[in-house]
This record gives sequence, structure tokens and C-alpha cells, in this order.
Amino acid sequence: MKFQYEKVIVPVVSGRLVFAAIGLDHGHIIAMCKNLEVHGGYLKWIYDENINKAKMLKKQFPNAKICSSAQEILCDKEVKLIISTIVPNKRAELGIEVLKAGKNYFTDKIPMTSLDQIEAVKKVLETTDKHFFVSFSKRMNNEAAFYATELIKAGAIGRVLQILQVETHTHVANSSKTEWFYDEKMNGGLLGDFGCHLIEQHLHFSGCEDTKLISSRLSNIKNDKYPNFSDYADMSLLSANGVSGQIRVDWLAPNWINGWREDRTTIFGSEGYIELGKFYDEDGNENDMHILNGEGEYFVKVAGKIGLPFYKDLVLDCIYDTDNSIKFSHIEAVVKLAIEAQEKAIRIK
Amino acid sequence: MKFQYEKVIVPVVSGRLVFAAIGLDHGHIIAMCKNLEVHGGYLKWIYDENINKAKMLKKQFPNAKICSSAQEILCDKEVKLIISTIVPNKRAELGIEVLKAGKNYFTDKIPMTSLDQIEAVKKVLETTDKHFFVSFSKRMNNEAAFYATELIKAGAIGRVLQILQVETHTHVANSSKTEWFYDEKMNGGLLGDFGCHLIEQHLHFSGCEDTKLISSRLSNIKNDKYPNFSDYADMSLLSANGVSGQIRVDWLAPNWINGWREDRTTIFGSEGYIELGKFYDEDGNENDMHILNGEGEYFVKVAGKIGLPFYKDLVLDCIYDTDNSIKFSHIEAVVKLAIEAQEKAIRIK
Repeated sequence: MKFQYEKVIVPVVSGRLVFAAIGLDHGHIIAMCKNLEVHGGYLKWIYDENINKAKMLKKQFPNAKICSSAQEILCDKEVKLIISTIVPNKRAELGIEVLKAGKNYFTDKIPMTSLDQIEAVKKVLETTDKHFFVSFSKRMNNEAAFYATELIKAGAIGRVLQILQVETHTHVANSSKTEWFYDEKMNGGLLGDFGCHLIEQHLHFSGCEDTKLISSRLSNIKNDKYPNFSDYADMSLLSANGVSGQIRVDWLAPNWINGWREDRTTIFGSEGYIELGKFYDEDGNENDMHILNGEGEYFVKVAGKIGLPFYKDLVLDCIYDTDNSIKFSHIEAVVKLAIEAQEKAIRIK
Repeated sequence: MKFQYEKVIVPVVSGRLVFAAIGLDHGHIIAMCKNLEVHGGYLKWIYDENINKAKMLKKQFPNAKICSSAQEILCDKEVKLIISTIVPNKRAELGIEVLKAGKNYFTDKIPMTSLDQIEAVKKVLETTDKHFFVSFSKRMNNEAAFYATELIKAGAIGRVLQILQVETHTHVANSSKTEWFYDEKMNGGLLGDFGCHLIEQHLHFSGCEDTKLISSRLSNIKNDKYPNFSDYADMSLLSANGVSGQIRVDWLAPNWINGWREDRTTIFGSEGYIELGKFYDEDGNENDMHILNGEGEYFVKVAGKIGLPFYKDLVLDCIYDTDNSIKFSHIEAVVKLAIEAQEKAIRIK
């Protein structure tokens, strides 16, 4: 096989898209800011109820200013986009406020933790041409995932039949893990918060949003002192086009792994498979791909060769009111499955 | 981690257990004969309706004699064990005849293809102290699988939570693939014939025979000309102790792989995981193990270090009428799940 790459170029003049960050509860905010700035964004304002969180982000982006209220930012006409990693069950509420202020909104996953929140966001979206974007970073920040999409489209593994995903994290109780981290009502639960990443990949790589939950399980094996926390979860999905999905997420990785190294997405097709994940890379790089098909077997380093098309599209969507980065119908399908998986899960003792 | 091994020793004087082979439809018969001879068995007779099959086996075991009828073998008092790889839907019938003749029976998987056959075998077993053994060779012929069992017992990966299994085969139509190969009524179907191997491993490694089928799927993606054949299958299991199982079996491996190299069993526990399979061995050896736990990560070559305890136990069971190699209740649990998975499978178009 020959591997060819088309690299994303910065779509607009640097700084053209002015954005602000409100609600900084998850560290993902840093990557979101960085990726936006790389693609033409400029972080003008930072706000969080907790001034220390705002100061921490400013350290990374010294040109940004800390604002004393969210309202002030929402009134700044120069700001076209508000981004947030506020606690998951508050993401919809903030998004609605942002949309009503005539701005685009870009939040971390999981963006909504109840069906009511989904409906409330949909209602507001009907009244505006602004967007509600979500960062499903497992795929959106992964060059190999974008490259896999291209290869699958080109038929490299034939018809997709099964998507196996495992993602194991190290759980170390520390100061960054505050109340909401251990409360599934606030974070959407393990199948919501982490599961939605993998559900998103399933819908994407299966090419089918009409996907049903077959079953799901949740368990708290090693963290009894947090009664509203799960450290193990799995689920099975079946798409209307026949693609079977098996997903596991957990907080049980040995501490020495120090991260989510054991993260594998195996997309199995009629003519071969593609495996994405940190697993195959001794350097700890997450943009690696293993592909095996009728032509042979390849270990491909994708880092730096593709860029992040999602961020390019998102910046353009904000400037030109197009809708190419991520459609809300897709977000809705993902989140509904995640909420269902979390709610219907068999609790394993 | 320190790895210590206890090797199986030949349990009896060589040739002590006299056995015969009747019905040689699957090539697994060779490994069954070899493993029995290594552990003290002596192949006295060979019989198949098709004399050519008998001759082919005799080439490998020149001391054995080709017999002109099965009945003659069943009357030979020296023979304590009959082994068979006859077509799957005939295995129970032959087994019943063997048991009624006062001999032990050892057949390839899948040993029974209907619930009626299971009941018929059970009825005969109630009347005899002889045994109905089954070769689930994926585990029984794999030293790493036995070693994994020991490590799990010793707590190396904590509580077992999920068992992920994939097994992909190359499908090449050739002369060895006759009528029964393409007829799921005769071979038990893909979830029966292959699936039962993996179900057996699930019940074994979960330590729980009370396991339910959650869902299963069958498809014929690339072999339309065989209407009663499936080349893709998967299923989900859930054990009463909470162990979740995901199984895929298929005939879709690229031809150049030439075998079942992409064969992985990942046993995920609360303190780490063990992965068994050919995948990790450049030499194509199937007795390799990858273990990752709190102490570190290890790639362990088990070949030659353990031997095959199953065959040692089976030989002793035949000689002393003990029941240590494989219990019929275990076989029954495996086969019932396999039949259910095959019967209830959603047929993916």
C-alpha cells in the first residue's frame, strides 16, 4: 500500500476568529484553546468563577485577559465563539446562554447529561444560525483517526463489520479531581463522560447514526469510598447497517502507566482492519495506526502529516456560518446513546 | 514479576492407554492422537468409512492398524478410549455408541449440534462410569492458556472483569472443505463450531458456568455461493459474577496470513490484563502471553514450559475412572450457549 497525506492548512489569517473561554473545570480547555489558535483563533477573554482557574489558563495564553464576569464577554461583539469545559451537567445551560447572545459555542464532551438538556438546546438552535459544537477529542484531536477515515472511504479494509474499543485510564485521587469528578449526576457517569467519546467513534466509523444500544454495564470495583463513581464500564452497540460495537472504558490501569496508553480502537472490515491507539507506539504517540489488509501489514506514523481538519472546519463554520465540522444531529445521536447506556446499565457488584 | 513453571510429566508408562480413532473428518484428529501418545496413549486402530482418510492418518501413525469396521473396534476389550473428529452433527450419536460399548469417548468440538443430542448423551452418561470428553483445543492445546489460568488464580490481574476474544481465519476453498464445511446444519454453524471454543474459554477464565447470551450476529459477507455458510459472527455474553464477554469469529483474514494468526484472547482484570494469542509472536508460536499489571509489562514465551495438563488428566481419567480433565456439566454449559447463540443470531445482510 502507498500512503499519501493531505495536510490541513491554516484556513484564515491568524487571529481572525476571536474567542473566549468561560468555565474551566476540565483541563481539556488548554488543548481546545491551542488547537483553535493554531487554526486562526485568538483567545481574547478568560472567565471562571474561580479566579485561580482563570489565572492558570492565562499562564498558557498570556495575551488573553481575565474578565470579571461572563456577561461582559457575552456582550463583546468581537467575540464570535465561546468555549467551555465547565462541569458537564452545566454545559447545556451555558451553551443556551451563549447561543441566545448570538455567539457560537464549543464545549467539551459530554455536552449534555439529560434528554431535557438536549431538547432545550435543540429548541434554541431552531432560532439561530449559530452553532453548538462539541469536542470529542479522542477522534477530533487524533490525526490517525482522520487518516483512518480516508483509508476506509477508499476501501482499504472493505465493509466495516465490527468496531472494538477499549480505553483504560489511571485513577489517581489528586487535587484536580474535585466533587464533580466523583458524582455521576454532575459528570454524566463513566458511560456518558468517557463512553460518549467511543460512541462518537462508533457512529463515525460505522457510518451509521441509526445505532441501538444492546446492553451496558457499570461497576465500582476499587473505589468504594466514592459511591457515585464507576471505575469499570462496558457496552455493546448494533448499527442498522450491521456494524457491531463493543466498548470498554475504565479507571483501572496500573498507576505506572500514567495515562491512557491502553487505548485501542480496532475497526474490523471484510478486507482487513485498522487499529488506532497509543498501544503500538513506543514513543507514547497517539497518532499511530496499524493496518492489516490483503496487501500486507503496516505500522504508520501519522503524527504531523494530516493536522486536525475538525479545527479548520470549526473556525470556518464560525466565520462563514457553514456547518462542516460537526452537525448537531450527530451530537444528539451520540449523547442520547450515552445517556441511555448510563441509565440502563446493569450495575455489577 | 517472577514466572515459575511446573511442567506436566507423562503420567503413565508409554502405551498404557490403548485408544482408537473412528471418524476422521477434521484434521484435528492428528493433534489429538499425537497429544495422547505423548501422554502415554497408544493408537491401536484407525477406522473411517472413507479408506483414504484412514490411510492418511496411518501415514502419521504407522504402528496403528486400519480396521475394516467400527464395530470390530468397539468389541476390542483392550481399547479404553475412542477418539473422533467425525462431522459435528454425528459426534453425539457415535459417542453414545462408544459409551454403550463401555468405552470412553473423546471428540473434537463442537461435540453436539442440538439440545436433543445433549439430552441423549446425558441419559447414557447416567448409566455408565465412562466419560464423554471434548477437545476445546484453543485452550486445551495451548500452554499459555494453562499458565494464564495459574497466574489468574494467583491474583496476577485481580478480579476478572472482561474477556475479549477475536479469532480470524483465512478461508480458502480447497479439497479439504467438503459438503459439511459449508452446511451449518452439519457443522453447528460458525458460532457453534468456532464460537464454542471461545465460549469455553469465557466460562473457564470467568470461572462461572452460569453465563447468559446477551446477543449474537451472523453474516455471510464474501461467500454468497455457499448459502448455509457464515464468514462473520460475533456475540456478547454476561456471566452471573459480572464478567462481560465479547467474541468475534470470522473467515475473513487476508489469504497471505495463511492461518489464524489474528487470534487474541484478552482477559482484563481489576489489576491488569493477560493477552494470549499468536499475535505477539513473530515466530508464529501460539503459546505466548502478554501480561500487564501493577508490577510491569511482560512478554512471556510459555512454549515447552508447561506441557498440556488436559491430556495428562484425560489419560488418567480413562485409566482410573477419575473425572479431572473436563466435566460433562462444563461441556453442556458451553454447547448450550453455542447452540443458543447460533439459533438466536441476528442475520446481518
